[in-house]
Amino acid sequence: MSRPVILVTNDDGIISPGIRALVEAVMPFGDVTVVAPDSPQSGMGHAITIHDPLRLQKVDVFHDLGIPSYQCSGTPVDCVKIAIDKILHRKPDLCVSGINHGSNASINVIYSGTMSAAMEAAIDGIPAIGFSLLDFSFDADFSAAKVYVEKIVRNMLNTGLTKDALLNVNFPKLPLEEIKGMKICRQANAKWEEEFDERRDPNGKNYYWLTGKFVNHDQGEDTDVWALENGYVSIVPVQFDLTHHHGISFMNQNWDLK
Amino acid sequence: MSRPVILVTNDDGIISPGIRALVEAVMPFGDVTVVAPDSPQSGMGHAITIHDPLRLQKVDVFHDLGIPSYQCSGTPVDCVKIAIDKILHRKPDLCVSGINHGSNASINVIYSGTMSAAMEAAIDGIPAIGFSLLDFSFDADFSAAKVYVEKIVRNMLNTGLTKDALLNVNFPKLPLEEIKGMKICRQANAKWEEEFDERRDPNGKNYYWLTGKFVNHDQGEDTDVWALENGYVSIVPVQFDLTHHHGISFMNQNWDLK
Repeated sequence: MSRPVILVTNDDGIISPGIRALVEAVMPFGDVTVVAPDSPQSGMGHAITIHDPLRLQKVDVFHDLGIPSYQCSGTPVDCVKIAIDKILHRKPDLCVSGINHGSNASINVIYSGTMSAAMEAAIDGIPAIGFSLLDFSFDADFSAAKVYVEKIVRNMLNTGLTKDALLNVNFPKLPLEEIKGMKICRQANAKWEEEFDERRDPNGKNYYWLTGKFVNHDQGEDTDVWALENGYVSIVPVQFDLTHHHGISFMNQNWDLK
Repeated sequence: MSRPVILVTNDDGIISPGIRALVEAVMPFGDVTVVAPDSPQSGMGHAITIHDPLRLQKVDVFHDLGIPSYQCSGTPVDCVKIAIDKILHRKPDLCVSGINHGSNASINVIYSGTMSAAMEAAIDGIPAIGFSLLDFSFDADFSAAKVYVEKIVRNMLNTGLTKDALLNVNFPKLPLEEIKGMKICRQANAKWEEEFDERRDPNGKNYYWLTGKFVNHDQGEDTDVWALENGYVSIVPVQFDLTHHHGISFMNQNWDLK
């Protein structure tokens, strides 16, 4: 049997430590190609580049590992699209994205370029996983995360998921021996409360930095936020059919559709 | 009772004809404020601006209608966030986004800045609707769409939706008398197949334009694509809890979680 073709991407950019950790963890499972943004693309959500052309360049970032790599001027979603059409010339057998620096648990899944790259692959029918570590530092320790990436990828390749699903995996900032295991979770019902930081430029005009705090009112013990706060790796199966099915019957019963 | 506060935004930019049609249609229902991107932001999905500061400027685009308006340098999602924090200083009673030029039916909901603006409001607990007309031309006729915007907004303010839902509304490119009515739908299971258009710049380097064709294998007559192809206004209730709940039980039963 031929080895699986594995596409690795991320949103922090091709030279971030997290993508290197991910490449090292998935290398034993197949033939890896990296196609990742040439600059940080955090918070890009499912953005695609429509009004500008894209650049794509072969680079040598993973030369020491013998892994071909390409950087793209676009978003994480663009990277997945162009990798399939112009580099692999086929769908990969697995697409992994990350390891993102910072949490993509709960509502962060919506804003995350890491998760949107994985979702783009899943829309195309490709088994896909986004990985994140709850540690923003450049020196973040990915060793425990790598152990769990291996367990999760093995399950994904051997058993797979239900149709039209992908995975959102988050790792707590803990050494391996303190991680209690993996938990399959639902997305916590939390949100960001924004406070823009208003400043004045040398010309006397205002500008604003987006800041905010994460607010979680969801007390459930089956959520990703709970799992992470209690020392577990959180795994949320994610869908891209956004239909609120209860909403359909509610509207048919209660709305005036004349 | 005080009049509802209504926030209007879009992704095509503050001077697009679609947002003017939307403002005119919702004006009778409350006190309208427009906060919209200063440039086209199509395909931005749920992107937010993290690495750059935002500019926000009072403008006079809807002076003739007596409606205050502001343009923002950020994405549609940024516009909603900054409108609540820095302009309205409260949550609006309704947020409407659009009217987008082009379809946001089916999987387009994922890429759409129009829909992401509405989703951002819904995450914040605000009743929210994204509107799109299947006509890209600058001279698109919004008159039929405006009639249906009024019907839908009236239902939204009087009856509302199930919790944690928003609406994705698409209008067919038809005159009012040929529209058969409104249909509550599910998101069609379709996708884009990409083909990048490869070109060479004057320096001999390649660049790529994202192109693609929309492929719908979903034969259901309960989908938004079916409704639009058959002369109906499609209304899909949309959720932002992306958990694939069947996936949780599947993984607990079939995965090796040790």
